[in-house]
Amino acid sequence: MQPNLKFAFNAKSVAIVGASRNPGKIGYVVLENFVKGNYKGKIYPINPEAKEILQVKCFSTLSKIPHDVELAVVVVPGAFVPKVIEECGQKKVKAAIIISAGFHEVGNEELTRQLQAAMGKYPHMPVIGPNCLGVLDSYSGVDTLFLPRYRLNRPKKGNISFISQSGALGSAVLDWAGAKDYGISKFISYGNAMNVDETDLMEFLAQDKETSVIAIYAEGIRNGRKFFESAKRITKTKPVILIKGGLSDAGGKATASHTGSLAGSAQVIDAVMKQTGVIHAKTMEEVFDFARVLASEPRPKGKRVQIITNGGGYGVLTTDAISFNGLQLAQMQEKFRKPIMAVSPSYAVIKNPMDLTGDADNNRFLVALQNAMADPGVDSIILIMLFQVPTLDSDIIEGVSGLLRNRKKPILVMSVGGEFAQMHMHLLEREGINTFNEPTTAARAMAGLTHYAMKRN
Amino acid sequence: MQPNLKFAFNAKSVAIVGASRNPGKIGYVVLENFVKGNYKGKIYPINPEAKEILQVKCFSTLSKIPHDVELAVVVVPGAFVPKVIEECGQKKVKAAIIISAGFHEVGNEELTRQLQAAMGKYPHMPVIGPNCLGVLDSYSGVDTLFLPRYRLNRPKKGNISFISQSGALGSAVLDWAGAKDYGISKFISYGNAMNVDETDLMEFLAQDKETSVIAIYAEGIRNGRKFFESAKRITKTKPVILIKGGLSDAGGKATASHTGSLAGSAQVIDAVMKQTGVIHAKTMEEVFDFARVLASEPRPKGKRVQIITNGGGYGVLTTDAISFNGLQLAQMQEKFRKPIMAVSPSYAVIKNPMDLTGDADNNRFLVALQNAMADPGVDSIILIMLFQVPTLDSDIIEGVSGLLRNRKKPILVMSVGGEFAQMHMHLLEREGINTFNEPTTAARAMAGLTHYAMKRN
Repeated sequence: MQPNLKFAFNAKSVAIVGASRNPGKIGYVVLENFVKGNYKGKIYPINPEAKEILQVKCFSTLSKIPHDVELAVVVVPGAFVPKVIEECGQKKVKAAIIISAGFHEVGNEELTRQLQAAMGKYPHMPVIGPNCLGVLDSYSGVDTLFLPRYRLNRPKKGNISFISQSGALGSAVLDWAGAKDYGISKFISYGNAMNVDETDLMEFLAQDKETSVIAIYAEGIRNGRKFFESAKRITKTKPVILIKGGLSDAGGKATASHTGSLAGSAQVIDAVMKQTGVIHAKTMEEVFDFARVLASEPRPKGKRVQIITNGGGYGVLTTDAISFNGLQLAQMQEKFRKPIMAVSPSYAVIKNPMDLTGDADNNRFLVALQNAMADPGVDSIILIMLFQVPTLDSDIIEGVSGLLRNRKKPILVMSVGGEFAQMHMHLLEREGINTFNEPTTAARAMAGLTHYAMKRN
Repeated sequence: MQPNLKFAFNAKSVAIVGASRNPGKIGYVVLENFVKGNYKGKIYPINPEAKEILQVKCFSTLSKIPHDVELAVVVVPGAFVPKVIEECGQKKVKAAIIISAGFHEVGNEELTRQLQAAMGKYPHMPVIGPNCLGVLDSYSGVDTLFLPRYRLNRPKKGNISFISQSGALGSAVLDWAGAKDYGISKFISYGNAMNVDETDLMEFLAQDKETSVIAIYAEGIRNGRKFFESAKRITKTKPVILIKGGLSDAGGKATASHTGSLAGSAQVIDAVMKQTGVIHAKTMEEVFDFARVLASEPRPKGKRVQIITNGGGYGVLTTDAISFNGLQLAQMQEKFRKPIMAVSPSYAVIKNPMDLTGDADNNRFLVALQNAMADPGVDSIILIMLFQVPTLDSDIIEGVSGLLRNRKKPILVMSVGGEFAQMHMHLLEREGINTFNEPTTAARAMAGLTHYAMKRN
């Protein structure tokens, strides 16, 4: 039976079991996240010695709370966790997240068995963890990440959800995603996965309206068959991106030290990905490149890409990159090429890649873009804008984003440079346009999107 | 005979033929670069109608200058260029750079022949161009890039030189390298390469004391045999990195439109790279990752990498990445592992990857780093520091950079995150430490360095 995970994310009331008065302690930081963040539900700190912490009334035990509790976040020392889980069960808590460590991951099998026994009595209460960072939900404000906000930036609301077997990796990437302004729906560090594993989380996110793309970092898949069947079904309606640690022989041995997972070989994983439709990413940057494009771009009808550039070299490199990623050059029809030729000098190359040349101005770019968007022989566009040339002025941002607002085909922008170029790329990002600074990354993202869309056609 | 290119870079006197009073014109921007930049030599603007521009006295023709001129930068319309080159020859100018376009690249073969004839009369005067951005020399202040400084950031002085067949690509990348704080010695956009080609430039840089790494973007190699022989010799003492546009079939056709180059297939180029020892980069980011590491890290003695991390997941991904790039995990000796174990909790994994775990503090990191540096079984180190955890404080920057100051083996740092993490990475960079934000890029750079060093052993 599928555990009901919704209360781990969208709880109307939360108890922090092990809340602390000491700002250096995890039990303080977790409580602070609920109190000072955007959580709107009831908060019950559990601490037998304190009357109140951060001006919130404390209770000595869960059972003393005179109201229902939907979520318990457990941060007490490992040895006390089995007992707390018993209390959660008796209190009819709907879900629990165990941050505390000290179980299987340090070889404490006896304590692990005790926890297993306690959880076994309350099979309807899903438990995430132990030994994890838990959950960040940008919508509900549930935030159990015990890392201070000045060190770990919380991202803005969005539609990408990210499941990470590694807490440290996950949180560092979350921090980076926030700085890049990528919108996140839910982040989940699931630790030892004793009761809730990556497949359960993926199943939950598949049903979640605020998630349109699921990204996963995993070192091992707990139950291969279960993952396989779930993924095969879910990818039919929602893209799943996986980055797998431990693909090399040496890396496989390293995962055994880290999470005790059994790593699959690169070949096996590749075959599983192909059969399930899961998108395989090789770097964390690629995970989010795939995710943001899948979360926001229209689905292309085919593989034919039109490249538009004001720098010939980047046109060539982008052609190489789309070609190596299984995409093709579009062939624009004469009637759409003509208006572009009419506004371009004779040395401009109005083919594919379309080289508007280094003296292209706003108008030349906009006419080219508009006609490529209108040509039914073009499935997608990679637009390369080098802002170093003086002929392109800043109004191009308004022009391009105006045209792209109701785009029916995916359009990715490639640019590169220092402060001036980066500022313009950032303005485009703010208008909902996906930008890249290498032809290879733009082409890979377009390929991920295209191959996913074509399987679904 | 090898053209003497030194006057194109380090000229004591320069004439700007076609200097303009109009700030919108190339002839103004180029003059302004010499006047307002750090160029220390004599400047002679040539303009038949102006008395002075930017407070520098103008001459109506080259012949009117009563002094020697070492370098002529030519920005007059294409049709006048052959005549100007004649004048340069008569004036015994030592080198010329032709920015002007309108030759072979737009199909004007007659004008191309006229220029060829003019250049043929003065074989001792090397001519870069036409149809190029020319040269930026961070040391001499020669700067013919006609792109305003607010749009194109000039990088700081350094030891990486970059030759680009594509002007727009080259300048965008230069701009980016400046923002990344990578130090540049010389940048050269060589355009149509009528007289001076990529091999001549590579030969010049091989002799240049301010260049320790040569990076090249090329779509075609003009003279394959000449390049092959030169590269084979040069890479014995100085690393050469090549990124080749037009490797795919479609990309090969695109280069024909762009620079008229004959592109080699991916297989041929790969074979040439292997035989010459040229390092093959696949992205512009990789070009500079290879370059900065080769320009600044000690040469490793072998392939054995020690990974030190406070995030297990990144240890696993880095292990995969070094393994896929032909490197190996080092096996540290007991006597170097023991002191690390003495300062670490029992759940830390003092192996390889060495997982100091999420609560590692400064001391644990420094003891680990120090012992890995001392162990003769470790050839190089990838140090992963996630700054999100509260146990690591900012003094770690001083500690790590202090240890690394006299490093005898290459040590690359991997980190990732938002503002807080990026600030710490930037501080490390300022101390001369190479940082990366993906395991794959750090491992690729280490592999490039290691494979190059081992061929030289």
